[in-house]
Amino acid sequence: MSATALFVDSATIESQLAAARQAIATRENISRVVLTACGGSYAVMQPIEYFFGTTAKTLEATALNAAEFTSRASSRVDAETLVILCSHSGTTPETVQAAKHARERGALTVAFTFDPTSPLAEAAEYVVAYQHGEGKSEAHVGPALILRLVAGILDDREQAGLATAIDDAVAQLPALVPALREAHAVAADEWGYSSRREPLIYTLASGSNFGTAYSFAICLLQEMQWVHSAAIHAGEYFHGPFEITEEDVPFIALLGLDETRPVEQRAVDFLTSHSKRVLVIDAQEFGLDAVSPEVRGIFAHLLFNVVLRAYADALADHRGHPLSVRRYMWRMEY
Amino acid sequence: MSATALFVDSATIESQLAAARQAIATRENISRVVLTACGGSYAVMQPIEYFFGTTAKTLEATALNAAEFTSRASSRVDAETLVILCSHSGTTPETVQAAKHARERGALTVAFTFDPTSPLAEAAEYVVAYQHGEGKSEAHVGPALILRLVAGILDDREQAGLATAIDDAVAQLPALVPALREAHAVAADEWGYSSRREPLIYTLASGSNFGTAYSFAICLLQEMQWVHSAAIHAGEYFHGPFEITEEDVPFIALLGLDETRPVEQRAVDFLTSHSKRVLVIDAQEFGLDAVSPEVRGIFAHLLFNVVLRAYADALADHRGHPLSVRRYMWRMEY
Repeated sequence: MSATALFVDSATIESQLAAARQAIATRENISRVVLTACGGSYAVMQPIEYFFGTTAKTLEATALNAAEFTSRASSRVDAETLVILCSHSGTTPETVQAAKHARERGALTVAFTFDPTSPLAEAAEYVVAYQHGEGKSEAHVGPALILRLVAGILDDREQAGLATAIDDAVAQLPALVPALREAHAVAADEWGYSSRREPLIYTLASGSNFGTAYSFAICLLQEMQWVHSAAIHAGEYFHGPFEITEEDVPFIALLGLDETRPVEQRAVDFLTSHSKRVLVIDAQEFGLDAVSPEVRGIFAHLLFNVVLRAYADALADHRGHPLSVRRYMWRMEY
Repeated sequence: MSATALFVDSATIESQLAAARQAIATRENISRVVLTACGGSYAVMQPIEYFFGTTAKTLEATALNAAEFTSRASSRVDAETLVILCSHSGTTPETVQAAKHARERGALTVAFTFDPTSPLAEAAEYVVAYQHGEGKSEAHVGPALILRLVAGILDDREQAGLATAIDDAVAQLPALVPALREAHAVAADEWGYSSRREPLIYTLASGSNFGTAYSFAICLLQEMQWVHSAAIHAGEYFHGPFEITEEDVPFIALLGLDETRPVEQRAVDFLTSHSKRVLVIDAQEFGLDAVSPEVRGIFAHLLFNVVLRAYADALADHRGHPLSVRRYMWRMEY
C-alpha cells in the first residue's frame, strides 16, 4: 500500500465527515456508542470515551478492543447503537469482523480508515477516510477527524456547543504541529540518547491522555522498539505500580489539561522525587492560547501524539533500530 | 488493623447483602452503574463490568479508577446511578472521596470493605462487609459477594435468572479453593523457582479474566515483588505487544471459560510457539463440573485469583522477598 496512491483529498474527507454526522443525527433513537478498534487505533478511541464520559448528558459510550467486542457479543448492541470503528489499513480482521457483527445486530456503523477501498470501508455503512504520511494535512489525520465527528454528535444530540471550538482547534494543527516538533527537537534527541540502553520504559497518564500513554507503550516501545513497557494509569500508580519506582527506572509522564490533571500531577510529584529518569511532558507548554479553554483538555491528546513521536524517532535513531522493523508483523501468518 | 478483631460473621454479611439488593431494587429508576475503586479493588470491578456488558439488557455499567471517577466528574452521575465501591481497609482516600462525590450527586452508593466501621463504610449509604485472612469463609470474600449482588440486581431488574446459579457456585468455593491450591502446589513451586531471577513477567487475558491478570501484574508482581510487569489484553497482543515476545520473555497467560476464550487461545497459541517461558493456567482444569454452565465463564475469575496467589506465594518464597514487604507504602506519606 503506497501512501500517496490512496491519498483522499480534504474536500472529500469533509463531505464524508458531514455525511456520517448527518446519518447519526437522523437516526434519532441512538442512545449508546461503542468505540472499537485494535492497538494504536483502539488507543485513539480512549480519549473519545473520555470526551463522552465527561460531556454527554444522555449518550452512553464504551471503548473496547475489537476482538473483545465481537467475541463477548455485548448484550446491548442494536438499532439504538452507533459503532465507530478505525483501522489504518482497513484490513485488520478483528475490526472488519466487529463492523460486520455490529451491522448484523442493527447498529449504525461509521469507519475511519486511511484506505476508503479497504474491507473495513466495505463493511461499514459510513466511511471517513483520513490522511497520513508525506504531504498530509495535520488537520485531516484520523484522531482529529474522530474528535470532530464526536463533537458534532454532541452538538446535534445534546446542544453541547463544542463543535465549533473543536473545529477551530483542529484547524490550528497545521501550525501547531511543526512548531511543537521544533520546540521538542533538542529535548527529544537528548532523551533518545540517554535512554538508548534502557530495556524498559513505563508511560503514565490519566483521563483523556491515557490512550496516548497506552499507544506509546504498546506501539512505539513494545512493537517498534522491542522495549518492554506498560502504560500506568496515574490514579492507579499509588495502588501497586509505584513500588517499582527507583532512581534508575525510566518513566514518561504526561501532564494534560483536562479535569484529571491533578491526578497526573500527584503521580509526577512522586515520580520526580524518587526517580532520576522521568521525562515529564506538560501540555501547558504546548502554546494553546488560541484554542478555546473549554476544549483545551480534550484537544491536548492530539498534540501529545505528535510530541511523543519526536521522542520515539530520536530513540529509534540512537538505538539504530528503525521504527519500521518488525520481528513478526509482515513476516508471518499469525 | 487486626484481621480477627474486625471479622464480620456470615449472617451479618448476608443481611447486609440482602439490604443492599433490596435498596437497589426499590430505586426503580436506576439505569446506570459505576464500579469504582483503586488498584486490586478496581481489578475486582473489571469482571463485574464484563458481567453487565454481556448480560444486561437495559443497565449500563462502567468501571473506573476512583481518582479518575471523582476528578473527571462524569457527566451522567445522578439519582439514576448506582455506584458500587470497594476498599479493603475502607480508608483509601480516593475511594472515600468517590463515595462522597457520588452521594452529593444523588447516586445510590454501596460499599464493600473488610472494615464496616471504616471511613468508606461511613461515606456510603449501604455497606457490605467481607471476610479476609485466617478463618475466613471462601464464600464470603469480597469478589464473590460483589458478583452475587450484581447477579441479584440483574435478576431483580431484568429477570436474568442467574442469581441462584451464582449463589450455588459461590457456595462451592469453600471446597473448590483448597482443592485448587493443592492441585497447583507443585507447579507453583516449580514456576516460582524457575522464575526467581526474572526482572519482568507479563500477564495476559481477556474478557472477565483481564481484571485478574491486571491485579496480578500491578499488585502481586509490581507492588509485592518489585518485578516489572504489565497486563496485556489478549485481543491487543497482536497489535503491538507481541513484538516483545522472545523465547526467554516470561508470560502468565489465562485461558478462561467466558465468550472471549478464543481470543485468549489465539494469543496462547502464538505465545507457546515463540516463548519457552509461558505459564498457561486453564480454567477447564478447575473442576467446575458442578457449577451451572451458564455462569462458569463469569465465575472462573474468582478461582484464577486463588490459583495465581499460589504462584505468587511460591515466587516470593524462592526470591526471599515476602509479599508483605513495601518500599513506600506504610513507610511514608504520599
